[in-house]
Amino acid sequence: MPVPPHSAGQSPGPRPLAVEPRRRPIGVFDSGVGGLTVLHELLVVLPGEDFIYLGDTARFPYGERDPAELERFAVELAEELLRRRAKLLVVACNAATAAALPALRRRMQETTLGVDVVGVVRPEALRAVAATRTGRIGVLATPTTVASGAYDEAVLAIDAHVTVNSIPCPGLAAIIQDGREFDDDTVALVREVCAPLREAEVDVVILGCTHYPLIGKMLQRMLGPDVTLVSSGAALARQVEHALSTRGLRNPSSQEGEYSFVCTGDAEAFSAVGTRFLQMPLGPVECVTVEQLGFGDDESAPRLRARS
Amino acid sequence: MPVPPHSAGQSPGPRPLAVEPRRRPIGVFDSGVGGLTVLHELLVVLPGEDFIYLGDTARFPYGERDPAELERFAVELAEELLRRRAKLLVVACNAATAAALPALRRRMQETTLGVDVVGVVRPEALRAVAATRTGRIGVLATPTTVASGAYDEAVLAIDAHVTVNSIPCPGLAAIIQDGREFDDDTVALVREVCAPLREAEVDVVILGCTHYPLIGKMLQRMLGPDVTLVSSGAALARQVEHALSTRGLRNPSSQEGEYSFVCTGDAEAFSAVGTRFLQMPLGPVECVTVEQLGFGDDESAPRLRARS
Repeated sequence: MPVPPHSAGQSPGPRPLAVEPRRRPIGVFDSGVGGLTVLHELLVVLPGEDFIYLGDTARFPYGERDPAELERFAVELAEELLRRRAKLLVVACNAATAAALPALRRRMQETTLGVDVVGVVRPEALRAVAATRTGRIGVLATPTTVASGAYDEAVLAIDAHVTVNSIPCPGLAAIIQDGREFDDDTVALVREVCAPLREAEVDVVILGCTHYPLIGKMLQRMLGPDVTLVSSGAALARQVEHALSTRGLRNPSSQEGEYSFVCTGDAEAFSAVGTRFLQMPLGPVECVTVEQLGFGDDESAPRLRARS
Repeated sequence: MPVPPHSAGQSPGPRPLAVEPRRRPIGVFDSGVGGLTVLHELLVVLPGEDFIYLGDTARFPYGERDPAELERFAVELAEELLRRRAKLLVVACNAATAAALPALRRRMQETTLGVDVVGVVRPEALRAVAATRTGRIGVLATPTTVASGAYDEAVLAIDAHVTVNSIPCPGLAAIIQDGREFDDDTVALVREVCAPLREAEVDVVILGCTHYPLIGKMLQRMLGPDVTLVSSGAALARQVEHALSTRGLRNPSSQEGEYSFVCTGDAEAFSAVGTRFLQMPLGPVECVTVEQLGFGDDESAPRLRARS
């Protein structure tokens, strides 16, 4: 995909993005706001980098969709981020990672200047295997993710002698997204999904849904203080750091980076829920409709940037 | 102080508290809701213990008060918690710890059956000294705490060869308490207080106010990923665990413990702000007026308990 040249007539953004590959932003996409818990860790681990976050809120949730459809969505979102000059892509969505990561990687290698794609699942699996002492790992995830077997597969590919207990948590992501994470229903549900993991005496639990870190402390209390929780964000952030370093793409700036938000649905709704997920200032949110995805034009797409 | 016998005529609580010292609750007190970030860590590290949290919201804030007055308040709050059969007291308040801990400890040893009192400041100082590699430690705290020199003193008592940079953060606790932690003013203020610590190249920063963990991730981003943050809760929780173990007072129950809340001011306001600080379900809050403090009567003080 050709990257349009930086328009001289345009009012200049806060930093000339097109000049140097290292100074380009990292593109992060997700089906909605959940991936903001991943961005949140990226902002902490890589404070010098710029980020663009794209949430496909108009087509949320991805959980029940056909893998071929998810592949198409993922390519559309990736192209939108490349158009905004992303130097690396992060798939901060379990469903999209499971359905589309290999195809997306192939496509990025074929059609662009070799932009790397980093997804969830494998980083958590790696970290979980490294952390377990008993060889018993638990996974909490949406029913779709559990059914896909993505975590079991990723863990067993690293170490075949590990036992994986994957527990589906129906409705939990929706409860957290609605802001009901501390009500009685949530507590009952969380207690219920933790019980089999306590019984199985796992010593590491993968939070296999980007919404779950918001109830991380409740989970830690119910699972016990000796259980290590592994969330997508923390595990993935380190892998992004490695990918950038290997390619010589770390931003050389010593200043704090900028981050901005784009969503395909209601920008105001994104803003309202987003702060809770990001746990940092959010700033303005730009809307790009599904129809415009990948076909936007630089002049017409204002850069709404949040100073962190 | 005599502990009143468990009344047989009373409707039974969820667990007979008076029967066995190990099954008694841990009492935690603070000037308001800030100490809930400490309770939050205690709930995670000690999930089998029961807790009573007492927030002196009617007399909040403690920051500007006379040390002699704070000593009197601390003794009143401690006696209220002992009346509720606390087996250990936690002072989850920097101002009260600095002003009243020695006197409180003395009094508890003289007048009760040797109930231990654990306060903030020293646990963070210990952890910070253990974590630093460069010997340069930063402290972010309220102006009053910085002026008291409590953290400098505690750190230098452990290791005289360490440099301590204490930065007062005027108004930051109030901003966080008001729920404005992610607005532009906060970001500007946080950036300002982090600047001298970055310049001093500290590698450990003590969050010397119980409100600050709520902006922990923002602080981590602004201070850089290589700086270790030490908060009161995590550091203190370990010390409480040791104190209980040494005395043989760990709760032998394998069940998740219960926790309940009492405040001297508006219970509804406490509830509204409290959930954000506790990051767990809060449940009902009981009100005890300042006049009633330490003079309540078992029958008239219903136990409002939140199942966690």
